[in-house]
Amino acid sequence: MVAKEWISAIVLLQLCYTGCGLCGKVLVWPCDMSHWLNLKIILEELTERGHEVTVLVSPESFIIDYSKASTLKFEVVPMSPNREKAEKTLNDFLDVATNVMPTLSAWQSAMKLQEFLLRETGNLKLLCESVVYNRSFMKKLQETHYDVMVIDPVLPCGELIAELLTVPFVYTLRVSIGETLEKYCGKLPAPLSYVPVAMVGLTDRMTFLQRVKNVMFFIFSNFWIQQLDTQVWNQFYSEALGRPTTLCEIMGKAEIWLIRTYWDFEFPRPYLPNFEFVGGLHCKPAKPLPKVLWRYKGKKPATLGANTRLYDWIPQNDLLGHPKTKAFITHGGTNGIYEAIYHGVPMVGVPMFADQPDNIAHMKAKGAAVEVNINTMTSEDLLTALRTVINEPSYKENATRLSRIHHDQPVKPLDRAVFWIEFVMRHKGAKHLRPAAHNLTWFQYHSLDVIGFLLACVATAIFLVTKCCLFSCRKFGKTGKKKKRE
Amino acid sequence: MVAKEWISAIVLLQLCYTGCGLCGKVLVWPCDMSHWLNLKIILEELTERGHEVTVLVSPESFIIDYSKASTLKFEVVPMSPNREKAEKTLNDFLDVATNVMPTLSAWQSAMKLQEFLLRETGNLKLLCESVVYNRSFMKKLQETHYDVMVIDPVLPCGELIAELLTVPFVYTLRVSIGETLEKYCGKLPAPLSYVPVAMVGLTDRMTFLQRVKNVMFFIFSNFWIQQLDTQVWNQFYSEALGRPTTLCEIMGKAEIWLIRTYWDFEFPRPYLPNFEFVGGLHCKPAKPLPKVLWRYKGKKPATLGANTRLYDWIPQNDLLGHPKTKAFITHGGTNGIYEAIYHGVPMVGVPMFADQPDNIAHMKAKGAAVEVNINTMTSEDLLTALRTVINEPSYKENATRLSRIHHDQPVKPLDRAVFWIEFVMRHKGAKHLRPAAHNLTWFQYHSLDVIGFLLACVATAIFLVTKCCLFSCRKFGKTGKKKKRE
Repeated sequence: MVAKEWISAIVLLQLCYTGCGLCGKVLVWPCDMSHWLNLKIILEELTERGHEVTVLVSPESFIIDYSKASTLKFEVVPMSPNREKAEKTLNDFLDVATNVMPTLSAWQSAMKLQEFLLRETGNLKLLCESVVYNRSFMKKLQETHYDVMVIDPVLPCGELIAELLTVPFVYTLRVSIGETLEKYCGKLPAPLSYVPVAMVGLTDRMTFLQRVKNVMFFIFSNFWIQQLDTQVWNQFYSEALGRPTTLCEIMGKAEIWLIRTYWDFEFPRPYLPNFEFVGGLHCKPAKPLPKVLWRYKGKKPATLGANTRLYDWIPQNDLLGHPKTKAFITHGGTNGIYEAIYHGVPMVGVPMFADQPDNIAHMKAKGAAVEVNINTMTSEDLLTALRTVINEPSYKENATRLSRIHHDQPVKPLDRAVFWIEFVMRHKGAKHLRPAAHNLTWFQYHSLDVIGFLLACVATAIFLVTKCCLFSCRKFGKTGKKKKRE
Repeated sequence: MVAKEWISAIVLLQLCYTGCGLCGKVLVWPCDMSHWLNLKIILEELTERGHEVTVLVSPESFIIDYSKASTLKFEVVPMSPNREKAEKTLNDFLDVATNVMPTLSAWQSAMKLQEFLLRETGNLKLLCESVVYNRSFMKKLQETHYDVMVIDPVLPCGELIAELLTVPFVYTLRVSIGETLEKYCGKLPAPLSYVPVAMVGLTDRMTFLQRVKNVMFFIFSNFWIQQLDTQVWNQFYSEALGRPTTLCEIMGKAEIWLIRTYWDFEFPRPYLPNFEFVGGLHCKPAKPLPKVLWRYKGKKPATLGANTRLYDWIPQNDLLGHPKTKAFITHGGTNGIYEAIYHGVPMVGVPMFADQPDNIAHMKAKGAAVEVNINTMTSEDLLTALRTVINEPSYKENATRLSRIHHDQPVKPLDRAVFWIEFVMRHKGAKHLRPAAHNLTWFQYHSLDVIGFLLACVATAIFLVTKCCLFSCRKFGKTGKKKKRE
């Protein structure tokens, strides 16, 4: 009897934590590499809560291992993979990212990244066509009646599939180049005086010249990046949907934008009610480090010091959570930075490309990191940086402060991400969070028509008053003269 | 043994729900009337969670009943009350609000409200002086070492006391006139193209002329209301603090702004991480209506129908939650509107002043209310409105939809309000949520200096290029002429 009561209590608690109320079907359009590592955590939590999660995966994927047994279901896009070409593309990208980009300015780096994405447009279109123009495949997806799509918007197509299937969708994203997607398609406001443009490497406290740079980088990303990116896709989306449309119009239908940062990392800035900041959702308490675990591969360089070891893979989160860990040397990827914030470990940042210079700029501004330039650094520089973050107490203090902020939220980031995906399933969308800005043209949005109208009114008023005055003066003048003559 | 285990489990659960970790001391600067009804709920929850809550109260208060036994502590401001004068002021205000304001336009109504507040400035200053210039009283407050102040900013002074006591503070507010406090002191962005200015009675979907009205109302509230309001207080605050400052500068130090609305009621709009929308925190499930409860007072009008009853007081929340309640005739106060949203009851709005016309405009736009003009309505109008919301199913459906949205939040509004007050206590502030916009002048904030500089650069470039061209043309022209001569 008592045992039964205990079991009831446990079942009740379990229901509170894992019950989804309405278990549904989730279709996923992912992005490969580190993006997938973050997204996978959300998807596994969704399956834990009883949802059926199906991932649309390219047969050319690298780390989305669709052949391995998993709680996730995979639908491989019906196309013949060219693995050799895919590997060449990846290696080309990694070469540019690690060798070329760190030598470039923020502008050149953003251009390079955009160039690469544009070069890849052909492959992306092929992948997208293999889904949306394959009638039987689309019919199969249609007949499954998905409740929601979860989409990584860094590579287009997901939102087009959602539109064709008429399924509401949720985005999961760190940031787009120049934040153009969030700004133009999501209507996220970003006052340039204290919100640094994404990938410009600035902070929220800018000097006059930095603010000039920020505005110019905005103009650059605004006119150059956005136009190039959308030229191709606007036409493709219009053809696929059979009506004139734009990439942005379809992206703007996202019900919720799950952003992979939080205010421990982000500079405070305006946002919208359908933007949810869920940074660090992949982090978890460290497990004790096992005794035999690390793997050694390849030849040890002759110059390697006696106190340095080489490993092919290490359990980064568990290592960062180990009480003896003093500092973290990182390339500045968001996932790694969040593991360091979670465990309160100060950082030495050696950023290379994409959001990495920004990420390190954030951690530097918050006093939890020192940056080293990978292109110019000497071993002495790295050593000095490491000594600084280990020996100067402010770095550990600030890292601990960020960690405290991270852990002190009303709801954990993973639970918030899952809540909003489930909310969209329960309510068939989240239209009550969608700003009316989506219905305005750019000149209406900035009230340019109203300002023009009011200026015209003022000009007309001034003109009329001046005319009247002149007329009166002349008339009175004449009367005066007449009077004088009389 | 088993009973002991159960008790432990229960205690554990209780701790999860009511334990505050660090129980602290809260000082409150409230506002009287309906504002107090809302704030009191937060304060009672804080005392429930073990905090010591002290309310600074004017001896001229009307519904803040400091003489009644309560879990709250009261510190009465040391001044001699003039109850007669206070009652006259209240009656004057109620007369203007119910008889004069409903006949006025949004502009005139806002002016009237502002005029009243200005007329009351003398009394407010007297109250404020009685606190901040009373050394022994301030010493007593100082020595209590409060952890946080909770302030209703509609009437100034609270933030000045917090600044003098060096205690971090949290605001609780529905909206200020023209939203000037949130916008200028809190740096809350409000794009005028889809965010209606507070108290203008518009929605987020405006025609061209409505957008013109919105911009003009903004200019009006910007230059007129704000200046008048701050002229007096800037000087008073500077004198009290012994350094030049402004009301806005001190208000801008608020750690968190708890806004008494949520996205069930609000139109989606940009906001900042230190703004938390906790509308409806005072709502709770309805209790069954007792049999003998209502009180009858005064003479029954001869024209009253046989099916209408007069009561001096009714338990509004329980009545709205009764399954047989079909509609709610309301003056449109935020507290009442939220009780209707909570229970999903459609409304007939008869707004009078302040935020009431706005509130009804929100509910109308969301399809959950019909508005009747108190100044021009006939009994026929009211009857038609009532029949509409009862008989047209869309009103009940929309009210139910808003109710569903209200109830489907990751954390309940009251818990979020309490969380952020406790967060400020735990971390001695919430500086990580404070936008850097506070450090900028208005022309820096709008990037006017940068735009000016860039335009000057462009103008210089055009000038130089033109000069060069002219010079070259002249030179080549001369050479050409020379050559011709030769």
